[in-house]
Amino acid sequence: MNPLYRRIADQYRSAIHAGSLRPGDRFPSVRTLMRTHTVSLSTALQACRQLEDEGWLEARARSGYFVQHPRRRGLPPATEQGLRPIDPAAYVGISAHVSEILARGQRQPVTANLALAVAPSALYPGEALSRIMQRKLRLQPTALVSMTRRHGHPLLRAALARRVLARGVAAAPEEVVITQGATEAMNLALRAVTQPGGTVAVESPSFYGLLQIIEALGLRAIELPTSPRDGLSVEALAFALDSDPSIQAVAVMPTLHNPLGCTMPDARKAALVALCAERGVALIEDDIYGEMSPQPARPLKAWDRAGGVIHCNSLSKILAPGLRLGWMLAGRWQARVEMLKYTQSRFPEELPQATVAEFLDSPAYDRHLRRLNEALRQHRDAYADRIATHFPPGTRVTLPEGGMLLWLQLPDGASGDTLFDAALARGIKIAPGSMFSTGRRYDGCVRLSCGRAMDEDVDAALRTLGSLVRGA
Amino acid sequence: MNPLYRRIADQYRSAIHAGSLRPGDRFPSVRTLMRTHTVSLSTALQACRQLEDEGWLEARARSGYFVQHPRRRGLPPATEQGLRPIDPAAYVGISAHVSEILARGQRQPVTANLALAVAPSALYPGEALSRIMQRKLRLQPTALVSMTRRHGHPLLRAALARRVLARGVAAAPEEVVITQGATEAMNLALRAVTQPGGTVAVESPSFYGLLQIIEALGLRAIELPTSPRDGLSVEALAFALDSDPSIQAVAVMPTLHNPLGCTMPDARKAALVALCAERGVALIEDDIYGEMSPQPARPLKAWDRAGGVIHCNSLSKILAPGLRLGWMLAGRWQARVEMLKYTQSRFPEELPQATVAEFLDSPAYDRHLRRLNEALRQHRDAYADRIATHFPPGTRVTLPEGGMLLWLQLPDGASGDTLFDAALARGIKIAPGSMFSTGRRYDGCVRLSCGRAMDEDVDAALRTLGSLVRGA
Repeated sequence: MNPLYRRIADQYRSAIHAGSLRPGDRFPSVRTLMRTHTVSLSTALQACRQLEDEGWLEARARSGYFVQHPRRRGLPPATEQGLRPIDPAAYVGISAHVSEILARGQRQPVTANLALAVAPSALYPGEALSRIMQRKLRLQPTALVSMTRRHGHPLLRAALARRVLARGVAAAPEEVVITQGATEAMNLALRAVTQPGGTVAVESPSFYGLLQIIEALGLRAIELPTSPRDGLSVEALAFALDSDPSIQAVAVMPTLHNPLGCTMPDARKAALVALCAERGVALIEDDIYGEMSPQPARPLKAWDRAGGVIHCNSLSKILAPGLRLGWMLAGRWQARVEMLKYTQSRFPEELPQATVAEFLDSPAYDRHLRRLNEALRQHRDAYADRIATHFPPGTRVTLPEGGMLLWLQLPDGASGDTLFDAALARGIKIAPGSMFSTGRRYDGCVRLSCGRAMDEDVDAALRTLGSLVRGA
Repeated sequence: MNPLYRRIADQYRSAIHAGSLRPGDRFPSVRTLMRTHTVSLSTALQACRQLEDEGWLEARARSGYFVQHPRRRGLPPATEQGLRPIDPAAYVGISAHVSEILARGQRQPVTANLALAVAPSALYPGEALSRIMQRKLRLQPTALVSMTRRHGHPLLRAALARRVLARGVAAAPEEVVITQGATEAMNLALRAVTQPGGTVAVESPSFYGLLQIIEALGLRAIELPTSPRDGLSVEALAFALDSDPSIQAVAVMPTLHNPLGCTMPDARKAALVALCAERGVALIEDDIYGEMSPQPARPLKAWDRAGGVIHCNSLSKILAPGLRLGWMLAGRWQARVEMLKYTQSRFPEELPQATVAEFLDSPAYDRHLRRLNEALRQHRDAYADRIATHFPPGTRVTLPEGGMLLWLQLPDGASGDTLFDAALARGIKIAPGSMFSTGRRYDGCVRLSCGRAMDEDVDAALRTLGSLVRGA
């Protein structure tokens, strides 16, 4: 017999079919469902998620679920793909492959760049930041010629400590280490906790930047099953830790994962932190999209009691893509991270830090976040809508709660690499799935960024992509 | 019998004793000596160098030799110290030692910082750079929020290629890779050409930053005999390459060495490049003080025909200590360096690059260089003068042709580490010699920076240091 949540879901699916719930209608709240059907919170939630997974419902920030536009229903969500065993030889060469893809993308004139995981500059507070920086330059004429002094400007460290406190992490300003973007932070984190030849457990798929760092540091990545909805499988990690003693660190993106877009539920985050603490394995989190989450998302660091979590973050995606301002909380490895940072690139420039600190501490930052996230929500909806229209049946896509990344599984037989080449020849840039795995597991996938607002060019690009996939 | 050059030197020494040549007098030019004594260029030069080594003569930029101030005569130049064999255990731990020294220096309030290898901000064109940056911010309001795109701003790459052309290096703008200071450039260079466990041949003493990088990358440093006047012994390097096949790179500072202050003569630079090319060993040069040389100093890269030299440089010491703008010419490793750079910290911020490019291309840059180098020359003279007055007999010191670093050999028995502690307790910061060798060979030495102009505080600090050495 069907479990209870499925029977509830069936009932509402019929209501949508019957037209009693129409696209755009607000779906009954979880509280209402609990009362109406006398079920537990978890059963009510499961029912909503079932319908969401099937494409009938859409979750909106702080507003609950809404019935989905019919065309969108044509797009089933991306699934977790079975992990094939990997030929050891396939562990090498991801950097060369990614560099090749990036280089080819740069040689070609591009009219629609759907590969760029950042929003266009108009969505960031460029003028406000610029005015602050100009004032600081006027007031402090030696700003550019005074030697940099610390692992972060005191005002920026304090501002970031306050921001992360609101997300459940208590950190002293002195624990914040400012870095050259999250990329440097991830490098330092991995250098601090691993030895060359060691293994790093990662999600599958994973952001190619992480795979490149792992390879460039002489480490090996082991890719673990990851659900496009709930993230890394903690059970699979436990199994891997039991069977592979060379695993020295776990590196994940628990909130708005790149490329999957998924966020681990809190219970799963807590279990992951507990598992790594128990096994004494360093847990590194990349949280650069954390503040793009519609619900305030707690980072793994919020569950860290023993200093075993290294939190890596950046302001490049959320506030200022032109500044390379990353930061990290390195837990019990802070002294080692500070030493490595000094050795690798000394102390960061102070003027951009002071500029951003002032902005973060003003009400303008929260206003900016709301505006950015609302714009990205609209972009995601519009892109999903056009993808549903233009792509052939059999295409599956994630519809993440926040951020700007859509992960597409192409119909059987279609190749992301082939699509990349054909699209590039037509001035369209996408990120092929092969970039996101050392084992090249995801050639049947592509990542599309919806940072840019929908317009005629993007619509035409998506139509071209769809017809290329049909022709494949 | 004395060689010819010694007999000529004896003659002029007597003339100085007799007062026929007085302190401050211009010494006969090399051309005059050749004519007067009917000797070869090399004999005339050797005679001058002999007197210079004894402290009787001082070389000045483009003006030839001058008879030295009598007090300065009391200060014999630093000598090359015999290299003891090193216990392999001593290879580890330089980073921890240096971090400890740096951390102790930061905990203590300091009134006279003679450890900082950078000039005070007043000697840099802070206001001019600030005005350029303000204008760029006004004209391009999206500067801080547009994603960084390349391995360097085209205008800065072109400006640096022009500057280095004037020093004998022909490089296309696209060969210039912009980095986070010379520190990141040296990291990338070493990562590009070595494997963990490999050995890097370095000068002895060497800048501690290089030793830290080598250690942090899991490499081993082998320190080679280095003359405080002529730099690395190429013969010793040839011998080391013959006997140690694990040497994968040579990393040197051929112009105004830190801490020795010495510059390799052109013939020695050429021989070094030729040796490394012949043996197929990567040659990495740190040239950050290159433009502080009174004579235009050719970098090793000027002799590079096969792309085997990696030139690392920075604008932090010469132009803008508040900006972390380094750069490099990576020769045949350029593609690998660009890949590693992308993996390590992505592309650099564009605004500071555009700002500096505009300044470099204006006549103001050469004016700034002349002013900076003239100021540092005065500082060096004044510091040497006060050191001669305050320090006990037996102290030896280098008098470099440019830059701001003085290398002192303390009288027998005095320890740089002990002096560091005693001085720090009195608010004076110095760099103890132990920082400049993995084998801690230079505990009898200290490095003093004369970036700051001579004033009462500095004079008092040098007096205190002198009396601490006397009491040691």
